[in-house]
Amino acid sequence: MFHFESDYLEGCAPQILEALQETNLDQTLGYGEDPHCEKAADMIRYVFDCPGADIHFLVGGTQANATVISALLRPHQGVICAESGHINVHETGAVEHGGHKVLALPATDGKISAAQVRGALEAHHSDFSREHMVQPGMVYISFPTELGTIYTRQELEDLHAVCTEWEIPLFVDGARLGYGLEASGCNILPKDLPRLADVFYVGGTKQGALFGEAVVFSNPRLAEDFRYFIKQNGGMLAKGRLLGIQFEALMNEGLYFNLARRADRLADRIRAAFHRKGIPFLTENTTNQVFPILENKCLEPLAASFGFECWQIVDATHTAVRFCTSWATTESAIDTLETYIRDNFQ
Amino acid sequence: MFHFESDYLEGCAPQILEALQETNLDQTLGYGEDPHCEKAADMIRYVFDCPGADIHFLVGGTQANATVISALLRPHQGVICAESGHINVHETGAVEHGGHKVLALPATDGKISAAQVRGALEAHHSDFSREHMVQPGMVYISFPTELGTIYTRQELEDLHAVCTEWEIPLFVDGARLGYGLEASGCNILPKDLPRLADVFYVGGTKQGALFGEAVVFSNPRLAEDFRYFIKQNGGMLAKGRLLGIQFEALMNEGLYFNLARRADRLADRIRAAFHRKGIPFLTENTTNQVFPILENKCLEPLAASFGFECWQIVDATHTAVRFCTSWATTESAIDTLETYIRDNFQ
Amino acid sequence: MFHFESDYLEGCAPQILEALQETNLDQTLGYGEDPHCEKAADMIRYVFDCPGADIHFLVGGTQANATVISALLRPHQGVICAESGHINVHETGAVEHGGHKVLALPATDGKISAAQVRGALEAHHSDFSREHMVQPGMVYISFPTELGTIYTRQELEDLHAVCTEWEIPLFVDGARLGYGLEASGCNILPKDLPRLADVFYVGGTKQGALFGEAVVFSNPRLAEDFRYFIKQNGGMLAKGRLLGIQFEALMNEGLYFNLARRADRLADRIRAAFHRKGIPFLTENTTNQVFPILENKCLEPLAASFGFECWQIVDATHTAVRFCTSWATTESAIDTLETYIRDNFQ
Amino acid sequence: MFHFESDYLEGCAPQILEALQETNLDQTLGYGEDPHCEKAADMIRYVFDCPGADIHFLVGGTQANATVISALLRPHQGVICAESGHINVHETGAVEHGGHKVLALPATDGKISAAQVRGALEAHHSDFSREHMVQPGMVYISFPTELGTIYTRQELEDLHAVCTEWEIPLFVDGARLGYGLEASGCNILPKDLPRLADVFYVGGTKQGALFGEAVVFSNPRLAEDFRYFIKQNGGMLAKGRLLGIQFEALMNEGLYFNLARRADRLADRIRAAFHRKGIPFLTENTTNQVFPILENKCLEPLAASFGFECWQIVDATHTAVRFCTSWATTESAIDTLETYIRDNFQ
Repeated sequence: MFHFESDYLEGCAPQILEALQETNLDQTLGYGEDPHCEKAADMIRYVFDCPGADIHFLVGGTQANATVISALLRPHQGVICAESGHINVHETGAVEHGGHKVLALPATDGKISAAQVRGALEAHHSDFSREHMVQPGMVYISFPTELGTIYTRQELEDLHAVCTEWEIPLFVDGARLGYGLEASGCNILPKDLPRLADVFYVGGTKQGALFGEAVVFSNPRLAEDFRYFIKQNGGMLAKGRLLGIQFEALMNEGLYFNLARRADRLADRIRAAFHRKGIPFLTENTTNQVFPILENKCLEPLAASFGFECWQIVDATHTAVRFCTSWATTESAIDTLETYIRDNFQ
Repeated sequence: MFHFESDYLEGCAPQILEALQETNLDQTLGYGEDPHCEKAADMIRYVFDCPGADIHFLVGGTQANATVISALLRPHQGVICAESGHINVHETGAVEHGGHKVLALPATDGKISAAQVRGALEAHHSDFSREHMVQPGMVYISFPTELGTIYTRQELEDLHAVCTEWEIPLFVDGARLGYGLEASGCNILPKDLPRLADVFYVGGTKQGALFGEAVVFSNPRLAEDFRYFIKQNGGMLAKGRLLGIQFEALMNEGLYFNLARRADRLADRIRAAFHRKGIPFLTENTTNQVFPILENKCLEPLAASFGFECWQIVDATHTAVRFCTSWATTESAIDTLETYIRDNFQ
Repeated sequence: MFHFESDYLEGCAPQILEALQETNLDQTLGYGEDPHCEKAADMIRYVFDCPGADIHFLVGGTQANATVISALLRPHQGVICAESGHINVHETGAVEHGGHKVLALPATDGKISAAQVRGALEAHHSDFSREHMVQPGMVYISFPTELGTIYTRQELEDLHAVCTEWEIPLFVDGARLGYGLEASGCNILPKDLPRLADVFYVGGTKQGALFGEAVVFSNPRLAEDFRYFIKQNGGMLAKGRLLGIQFEALMNEGLYFNLARRADRLADRIRAAFHRKGIPFLTENTTNQVFPILENKCLEPLAASFGFECWQIVDATHTAVRFCTSWATTESAIDTLETYIRDNFQ
Repeated sequence: MFHFESDYLEGCAPQILEALQETNLDQTLGYGEDPHCEKAADMIRYVFDCPGADIHFLVGGTQANATVISALLRPHQGVICAESGHINVHETGAVEHGGHKVLALPATDGKISAAQVRGALEAHHSDFSREHMVQPGMVYISFPTELGTIYTRQELEDLHAVCTEWEIPLFVDGARLGYGLEASGCNILPKDLPRLADVFYVGGTKQGALFGEAVVFSNPRLAEDFRYFIKQNGGMLAKGRLLGIQFEALMNEGLYFNLARRADRLADRIRAAFHRKGIPFLTENTTNQVFPILENKCLEPLAASFGFECWQIVDATHTAVRFCTSWATTESAIDTLETYIRDNFQ
């Protein structure tokens, strides 16, 4: 049985476990004020070419989203995002629990456009009754999106421009950032992120770490008192160095990107295998998630040998499913899946 | 240099790292729905003799407190606790961020009494203007307290009785639970916890785990929909098995209690060493935290060889300091400290 | 110049001012615990035939909505409503400020159906990831809706049935309740409200009072501790009798309904006048709001003599506008408007 | 029977009812954007000598407090106030419901000092663990206090100075502002308020209005987007002109101050009557609230003829009670009470 349900099925990259082992008896200060966090932050600043950025390590994505949004918005403001955005759909209302409305826009393949954002801002600020409505106070996007699609550099530039024009921050959820940056056809470089986003994070949990997201405030003015927010939102890890140690390992010799690239290429092989059979996809994408639309009658036999997720009912006889690869996916798992597709679909 | 600043200076008990290593490539479902969490919960149910309890694993203490309190209170209710309680002092207002007032009572050695709680409840419910005041909706205590003191069984029985009488839950923060249960003079047994508290947690972070707190709803009715609350409060770890694996190891062959007992006994040696010199203590206690009151002129020389925390200014010439032991404290560290005290205090 | 912009342009029905005058120097207890509130509540119980209902008086609609919703939901729950619902669009995120997501459903003429609600509930509770999503915890509808439309009795029965089946409360925002009950074609009686809704309110502000909404908990179990919620949400009027006095006057000899009926009939005349000219409407309705779709070139001349609200851009050359009648609308204002329409539209 | 339980027992000053009567059929825009609110704001700016102030009208005090505090604090910040402060004791946790901790300081006669505030700020900002604690973000005081005492001008200057030094706003709850400004011995002038407080309000509810508090942002930068906050907190009155009309009347020819002065002088007579009998007071004060400490055996006979409030149990045989005067207190009520005291106390 080979599992492709998600990209967090296993533990972590061996280099991380080794580093945890090596440092286990070292004594360091808690709460992220240790040399490992410091060094990991420096490495991220170097890799993403943002020497002035303020960097904080959080445990998970929902926590990172809620904490950043809490720090950036005033109470009467909401966050613009795609209808399919993680904060709108899959965080049990953490943003609303923090007091803010999610201002969802219709999404195409998980993405929203600068034109949509501009439209929402103009509509709000020209409305005579705007004080009776939630004021858009920031923009949240995911890179890659929930559907594994990626923004082009031009799209990001445009979103950046509209946010700059309206003086609201752009926040990029990078839970799968590496898979996006390493995807075929991606023309965004690591250094583009801090240039175009006010805040973004480098996802660890889904990219080979046990857990952890590195939040990068490329606009450090927005990070004022951010450590208070981390603590208030329950994200201040006592043994904070665990986060530093993991990101040191991930940033070392390009491990983060190598793992992501490998996973993307393995996903490409799954895509190609379905494509050769003329099977359509819910969305065209090139990251580590693959969304073929399968006949329902194929699902049960497939599920006997492979774990995958039923993503969306497409019609009475078809379902879009999701296969994920990760740092831990083996070549043999992909070989077996390829063979199965070749022999069992027509 | 030997460090005694806190009980979270190192990584984790070796058994935990081994278990992480062994399971690293296993594939399991995320979000705590894996066999390790299930088994760890069973082990806790067995050790604490609460077969019907509902058990959830969270990452840290502030998160556990905020999440449990959010689940137990209605919006107009507050939580009674000691003035010195962690939720009142050291969680950056996480409880208030969730909408609730902390109703702080004066504490003696970190503890509050059943009589105080009864007084607060009676005062509220007999007040003509009570609807203008926050209604006490639950009681929070720490075992051991912030000052390392412990409640007696009778004290817990009394708190339990008043909570039962007024139909509000009693919640025990057990971030250092093991150190309390293993302390000399403690007459509370593991099985007393679920009997006397509606909810409590078994702290891992400060007791040999990398991180993790096991929240036990001995009253499972209070746990309804609790997983939604975990997610909403950012505490749903994607690789949830990390928590299960750690608590399996801690509950295995009494490791959790053995580590705590050893640390308590090492702390006893520090206490005894100061005591032999006639040095007074901020509080009499028997857990892993030691609070001698030292002359200020002693602090700098002491700090050259030993790490400790300055806890409280006592008067112009004296400061209460804190020494913590933990699972990782070495005999030789204690030997050296004993020798230093013997030779340098009079 | 005749104003039809809203139904809160003037002060209040003369009977109310008289009652305020007469009682001005009486001395009564504050915060709604006075004989006027008591008597007004009794009158409402009588008029709506709900002898066991628990009734509270609040100052305004947004406040009433936020307070009721805060009292009925647990933190992980959200409120189902129409996309066009007041709480979703025009309350500056008061519901989210209180911690809850508004779960908006597409609306037809401002209404949602029992089938939609059932669909949303089934979708949530059958979702494998439901704990990552906001749980639907209540249903909010407006009667009449934002577009002045009304639910039929059958539609309300169906909504009631699905809420009962799923054990969640149905809450009816009755800011314009009277206009709905008195509308031509309305087959809902006052006594249907407490039978079919768990909570509803009898709007005063838009129906002849200076301000005030009477919240009726037909299910009094849901009102537990509600006065705490009123205070916490800033709605506890010190001189609470002002609310009682107003509702006494409104409930006296059917004033509330008489004023509403008259306003509805005057609105019918406006509707008829536009209809005679073949002018279409944004929505077919029979309450005190009229939404003709006018050519843009007509707007400026019309606005020279009549106040109205531009409601929605329909296409490049047409705009839907809103005319409101109220208790204070004069016959002569309607005559003049009728004449204008007759002479100036073709 | 003469009632002295509170200063909101009656309706409103006759001038206000007259103004409501006169304007009743006028048609104006809603939500405070009418000429009456504009004019009332101008009058307040004139009377308090703050031509650049931004002024908003809210319905009640709890609402005003919660809304202003919500607008001024970031989520990790709390509000410093006296332990006995209204926001700490009698608003059902409205501030915490909005997410903020009330940082209560011990109060003397209801007041806190600049030294206390400085101490709290210094303690916080010098604490190594400050990020684990709520950051003091503003100071709230009442003038007069809950105990009817008043700050001297020097005390206000000092509070202003420490707030300026630490760059946090000073907010003055003026629910009874007039009674304070007109108290014997008060050396604060209306024009001192905007000079020394960043925000304050001119209380109407307890000073002759039906309801209403005029919030004055002497520092208008702090009022950015404040109308959104009013709406979000349920304080945007649809018929907002009701607030404007009332404050126009109160500011006209000094009515507000005249009513307050008269009430203060009547309270002085009550104070003197008790004083002549050697009866002690809970607190020495000169505003419209009087707090004699009476023998318990006197209470029942007294209560047969006069309404008052039991404020605080002093010892086994004594209770502090409260008598309030207001704009509506009659000379004859005071005469009768004086006579009673003269004849029945010894």
